[in-house]
Amino acid sequence: AVKKLNVPLSGKDMARCGGITSMMRLPIASSLDGLDACFVGVPIDIGVSNRPGARYSFFPGNYRRMITIRQSPFLSPRQLPPANPSKQSPQFGPREIRNQSVVVHEYNVATGAAPFQHLMVADVGDVWVNLYNLPDICWSIRESFSKIIKNGCVPITAGGDHTITYPILQAVAAKHGPVGLVHVDAHGDCADLMLGEKIAHGTSFRRAVEEGLLDTKRVVQIGLRGSDYFGENNKFQRDNGFRIIPATECWHKSLTPLMHEVRQQMGDRP
Amino acid sequence: AVKKLNVPLSGKDMARCGGITSMMRLPIASSLDGLDACFVGVPIDIGVSNRPGARYSFFPGNYRRMITIRQSPFLSPRQLPPANPSKQSPQFGPREIRNQSVVVHEYNVATGAAPFQHLMVADVGDVWVNLYNLPDICWSIRESFSKIIKNGCVPITAGGDHTITYPILQAVAAKHGPVGLVHVDAHGDCADLMLGEKIAHGTSFRRAVEEGLLDTKRVVQIGLRGSDYFGENNKFQRDNGFRIIPATECWHKSLTPLMHEVRQQMGDRP
Amino acid sequence: AVKKLNVPLSGKDMARCGGITSMMRLPIASSLDGLDACFVGVPIDIGVSNRPGARYSFFPGNYRRMITIRQSPFLSPRQLPPANPSKQSPQFGPREIRNQSVVVHEYNVATGAAPFQHLMVADVGDVWVNLYNLPDICWSIRESFSKIIKNGCVPITAGGDHTITYPILQAVAAKHGPVGLVHVDAHGDCADLMLGEKIAHGTSFRRAVEEGLLDTKRVVQIGLRGSDYFGENNKFQRDNGFRIIPATECWHKSLTPLMHEVRQQMGDRP
Amino acid sequence: AVKKLNVPLSGKDMARCGGITSMMRLPIASSLDGLDACFVGVPIDIGVSNRPGARYSFFPGNYRRMITIRQSPFLSPRQLPPANPSKQSPQFGPREIRNQSVVVHEYNVATGAAPFQHLMVADVGDVWVNLYNLPDICWSIRESFSKIIKNGCVPITAGGDHTITYPILQAVAAKHGPVGLVHVDAHGDCADLMLGEKIAHGTSFRRAVEEGLLDTKRVVQIGLRGSDYFGENNKFQRDNGFRIIPATECWHKSLTPLMHEVRQQMGDRP
Amino acid sequence: AVKKLNVPLSGKDMARCGGITSMMRLPIASSLDGLDACFVGVPIDIGVSNRPGARYSFFPGNYRRMITIRQSPFLSPRQLPPANPSKQSPQFGPREIRNQSVVVHEYNVATGAAPFQHLMVADVGDVWVNLYNLPDICWSIRESFSKIIKNGCVPITAGGDHTITYPILQAVAAKHGPVGLVHVDAHGDCADLMLGEKIAHGTSFRRAVEEGLLDTKRVVQIGLRGSDYFGENNKFQRDNGFRIIPATECWHKSLTPLMHEVRQQMGDRP
Amino acid sequence: AVKKLNVPLSGKDMARCGGITSMMRLPIASSLDGLDACFVGVPIDIGVSNRPGARYSFFPGNYRRMITIRQSPFLSPRQLPPANPSKQSPQFGPREIRNQSVVVHEYNVATGAAPFQHLMVADVGDVWVNLYNLPDICWSIRESFSKIIKNGCVPITAGGDHTITYPILQAVAAKHGPVGLVHVDAHGDCADLMLGEKIAHGTSFRRAVEEGLLDTKRVVQIGLRGSDYFGENNKFQRDNGFRIIPATECWHKSLTPLMHEVRQQMGDRP
Repeated sequence: AVKKLNVPLSGKDMARCGGITSMMRLPIASSLDGLDACFVGVPIDIGVSNRPGARYSFFPGNYRRMITIRQSPFLSPRQLPPANPSKQSPQFGPREIRNQSVVVHEYNVATGAAPFQHLMVADVGDVWVNLYNLPDICWSIRESFSKIIKNGCVPITAGGDHTITYPILQAVAAKHGPVGLVHVDAHGDCADLMLGEKIAHGTSFRRAVEEGLLDTKRVVQIGLRGSDYFGENNKFQRDNGFRIIPATECWHKSLTPLMHEVRQQMGDRP
Repeated sequence: AVKKLNVPLSGKDMARCGGITSMMRLPIASSLDGLDACFVGVPIDIGVSNRPGARYSFFPGNYRRMITIRQSPFLSPRQLPPANPSKQSPQFGPREIRNQSVVVHEYNVATGAAPFQHLMVADVGDVWVNLYNLPDICWSIRESFSKIIKNGCVPITAGGDHTITYPILQAVAAKHGPVGLVHVDAHGDCADLMLGEKIAHGTSFRRAVEEGLLDTKRVVQIGLRGSDYFGENNKFQRDNGFRIIPATECWHKSLTPLMHEVRQQMGDRP
Repeated sequence: AVKKLNVPLSGKDMARCGGITSMMRLPIASSLDGLDACFVGVPIDIGVSNRPGARYSFFPGNYRRMITIRQSPFLSPRQLPPANPSKQSPQFGPREIRNQSVVVHEYNVATGAAPFQHLMVADVGDVWVNLYNLPDICWSIRESFSKIIKNGCVPITAGGDHTITYPILQAVAAKHGPVGLVHVDAHGDCADLMLGEKIAHGTSFRRAVEEGLLDTKRVVQIGLRGSDYFGENNKFQRDNGFRIIPATECWHKSLTPLMHEVRQQMGDRP
Repeated sequence: AVKKLNVPLSGKDMARCGGITSMMRLPIASSLDGLDACFVGVPIDIGVSNRPGARYSFFPGNYRRMITIRQSPFLSPRQLPPANPSKQSPQFGPREIRNQSVVVHEYNVATGAAPFQHLMVADVGDVWVNLYNLPDICWSIRESFSKIIKNGCVPITAGGDHTITYPILQAVAAKHGPVGLVHVDAHGDCADLMLGEKIAHGTSFRRAVEEGLLDTKRVVQIGLRGSDYFGENNKFQRDNGFRIIPATECWHKSLTPLMHEVRQQMGDRP
Repeated sequence: AVKKLNVPLSGKDMARCGGITSMMRLPIASSLDGLDACFVGVPIDIGVSNRPGARYSFFPGNYRRMITIRQSPFLSPRQLPPANPSKQSPQFGPREIRNQSVVVHEYNVATGAAPFQHLMVADVGDVWVNLYNLPDICWSIRESFSKIIKNGCVPITAGGDHTITYPILQAVAAKHGPVGLVHVDAHGDCADLMLGEKIAHGTSFRRAVEEGLLDTKRVVQIGLRGSDYFGENNKFQRDNGFRIIPATECWHKSLTPLMHEVRQQMGDRP
Repeated sequence: AVKKLNVPLSGKDMARCGGITSMMRLPIASSLDGLDACFVGVPIDIGVSNRPGARYSFFPGNYRRMITIRQSPFLSPRQLPPANPSKQSPQFGPREIRNQSVVVHEYNVATGAAPFQHLMVADVGDVWVNLYNLPDICWSIRESFSKIIKNGCVPITAGGDHTITYPILQAVAAKHGPVGLVHVDAHGDCADLMLGEKIAHGTSFRRAVEEGLLDTKRVVQIGLRGSDYFGENNKFQRDNGFRIIPATECWHKSLTPLMHEVRQQMGDRP
């Protein structure tokens, strides 16, 4: 017998302004059984140093990263909320990205990706977090993602601030060993301490390297830019062999050749 | 055996920024069986004459009206989105009112209302509408609400523009006969035609009277205000015995005495 | 005797924050006599499937298309309102595009276009529409545009949702026979039905082809992108010989070579 | 023969989202002949000390004042743009108040005012101003308003910053002698100098008193509030016999008794 | 010799759009010596359960409370940012309230308050906080406020979320013993735990009572409203003798009589 | 002894949401002694012809120009507020650019610029302006900048509308003689008169040429675009030998080669 795959609720069956707002209006699953991939939200933001709001906000860097592990993005850039919303812009988080996702159809015309013809996918809601205690939140996230990952389900995550990548990588590495990483961001997030604390949104990848979660020769950070403290200048990444693609190398040209290189760098390993 | 009632997902069990966004984070029901009341959205707005957007927008007048049939409002005025959003304001509809509703707790401190201790309530999603053909949309709404109402379930509806009240009243009157109505609005919506059409957001209650859906001595319109075409001046309502409370009589004082009179006017009939 | 041509009210004669707001502060004409071209608004939006508002909104795709029939655009891209306003963005329609147009001068420095030195142009206001009944609205639009077009006046239109292109093409083809079309849009708008209806914003060009309004070998759709229903993928357009330029082919380069090809494709026919 | 009076374009004849945007969609007049009253804009704001924008902005205090000379307001408070827009609020000026005015009908239900049944009214556009030189701007305004007023036409003005009231009062007093004034504002605008200049938005009424434009026993300032320089405290007004109604005396009650007193204070004189 | 008191930079000496943005453009002090009162910011918000942003945001409840200890507010309600900004509203924090404060003059016309004629006041900047660790942040705040308070300087604080009131009260009580409290808020903030944590924005006053920081017979909470968990209903406050004034008792009337009662309740003790 | 240079307050010493808001949180200087460069604001905007607000607004063109005289920009394009804010966008001026600048670190990763390791820089606040009288404002600006420049301090200025460049160039040329100019703007600002006035935001560079302030062979205007009055078309600039780079030549490619040419054009002279 053929397993019937979940598909997003079609705009032909319910106008896009209607229906309960799961990710892409996919079925909501209370169990992970049989899922090849799942959408899961992590609504926290107390790890940020500048503007909070990511508990409601969608962080595209994180979202694209998790997708990149196994499949091509099926959202065009114009369909994603902007990465750097200005001060007065609306904020997007797990809840808002679900709201916005209702206009996305199941087939990507540009890439030919048709994931719902091959994968069983559902929205599994958000992980439990306590909101007030960052080390404890990281513990909760690691536990939740371990349950998702242990049976082979690929989590596609909408954060949440960048702190969450650290416990997610803990869960991923516990299953797969050190993994490659495609990281699209303005900042490298390899600080040692922020305002004296070990866990914050700018320390995630230093912690990950210290704990052996990353296959550092298969780590690429794309889009780094902006100002820094004097003398820092991405030294940690260079010492550990990350590939760094500054934002200035991404402007005024197609990124297709770069993406080809990235695929080769990642190879077949996790 | 005692029936276990649905309750909104508690902020103690999941942070309010998390979870799938049903109304007040109540369980989502795919069946009406056993429900005393349900939240249901009607995401259409092609009946408006001025600014559209109500397919995403919450229309407080309509919302409060349906509630008033059987229970007191359990949202304080400050928790409702504003009734007259300015040109640049965000728009709120069935989807957005669900988003905003996640902060509402199950017990109203001011009134003592605790509906979830006595009633089985669920979010049943949105009714199907075709978006492009207003008479056909009205037919769809009437059919959907007839199914909700026939077994005694009370719909609490988030529209949608005011056109939807007409087919909802058709469904209500088919079950209960002519009903009383508490209508909070700036306009009476008793026009005969709008730009030559019989069905539009400003004609709902004339159509309802013509079809005998209202017990006109138990109709009250609260908050009427603004400018009008010369000579119109709510004549239809006065001819049919509606009670009219202009907005000017609502300013600078408590509405508690008025609400007492309204309850007496409504009495025990539907 | 030389006919005196209309010119936009100069910023030298009245500060740009002043004056009655016609398109570019051109004279307002109540007759079409003697006009080579006219600005005309179509303030409807009940044909949309997602976010309404186009009754007040300017739809750049439509605006550019109509201009392209006879002349180069004289607005730079930065002077046009954005094509994909985010959820909280202001909305632009016939009224708002007139508001914004008051800053445009009569001469385009980049292209040398100086249309008001050669053409008699006026703002003729908006066509009458009933707002509530889409087939009837299409009939009204066709009638209005037939009057504009029959004596050789070129309409430059600000919508309104994309449904309006269908009755406008009916009026154009009644005068000129099947015409070429330059269509800049994210979507091809060649669906057969939307939520069961024949007339909606996504069906305009299928209806136009079915009625023989387009010279399909001279139709080009530029900028198609995004996700789709599986298996649809612009099949109708390919079957009918439209040229399709996906958005991905427009990024990171000048569109001047493409525009040269488009002019050749259009040739001298209408 | 009976003179046919202008009426606003009816929403029954053109949907409110359509039509050229004059005030209330009244006819646009290029001559003052035969007009009992006219709408006229004064799009300047270089007299402000805090946030500019009034060249596009509607200043309700000014608007209501001019109306009060001869008739009751026919806009309800909810139909006026807010008097104190926050930093991110949209700005309203002569152009925007015309945009917003299209929803106003010709008859005020609350007051029974039906001005267009008795008065010939038109929109006469905006006065010419140079934008950069405040004394010269005041001269232009005085000249323009003198032309409006000399034949008995009552100007209903949308500013513009409060500086404009000074030259308007010059024109009014040249026709009528010292006049009464109903001034609704947070500030008294009776400073002598602002940053060393004689003409600015906070000096209008001191200049008016110095030039004998006001019948100071028939001046009332309603709504004064906020903080001030120590020792100033509206001394000029008290010395000249203005009646002052602080904002704190307007809260939590109807203003109907106050308005009765104001009418008595104004009496029958201009 | 008479001590020269600090005064806000006058709008007569520098236009209000200019100058470095301290609170009310007061001098910035690096020492507390000689200060009777100081403005101090606490830019944290990781204690909130719903929308973050208070690190930039001004929290009026907190601001007014600290002022109330020794003096009347000298800002009119209209000059304060709104207490319940909607989702899309701008956010106000210590930095933004300083921005907004530049329009405030030194003398309150309505109340006659002229604090800068009697008190030496400065802006002392913001306290150091680490942003990521709530118990550690509370420790920092307590230490900073202890230094401010120990020599008799009264802190006027702009938060920051409501968590900060707890360590501020620790510092206040260490100097003065249990104090009276005037608390204007929608919520009582007397929960025991939030998502399992002892320290969060909703637990401040239970912690304060447990540690004996409050003279509970001189605590008044004004404006409580909204929904709650069933059975909670401000029980802790009633058990401890707080006076509670629900929001419903504040509507449609002057609060002057209530404020008289509150002053009597507070008496002469700290 | 080595002079200790000012450095921006580090995010390691105070969270970026805290601290008094000078430019980049640099020390605030009340004296120019010893400064190599200074930030200085000019909060005026009465010279604009379209939308005012620049008294609060940051004008990137002006800012970048002043920087270019001696150093590379150390802000990435993404860190600058947008050059063409839409109607509803927030406005940025000297105050707001200081607010936004708190996130900028002292070292530019992309260019290697580390100005605070070589230059003594401070924020010196804003120049005094009277707001109401444009010729007088220009006189004040020239006087203030002459004091800054005469001892070799380089001003880095945040306006303010483009009028201010004229008196700043007067001050610069009084010290250095005719100077080169790198001007990034959509418009050339070489009009003779605006609405009859000699001084306004669109006449700055014609006045500068007339007074011999510019070395016209070393003037480049980058980014000119848009519409113009017929026949104007940058004739003044071409007659005077300015180099003009239209916006259309800047699209779809790196500007690095152009910047190399500009540096050669500027040479070593001031």
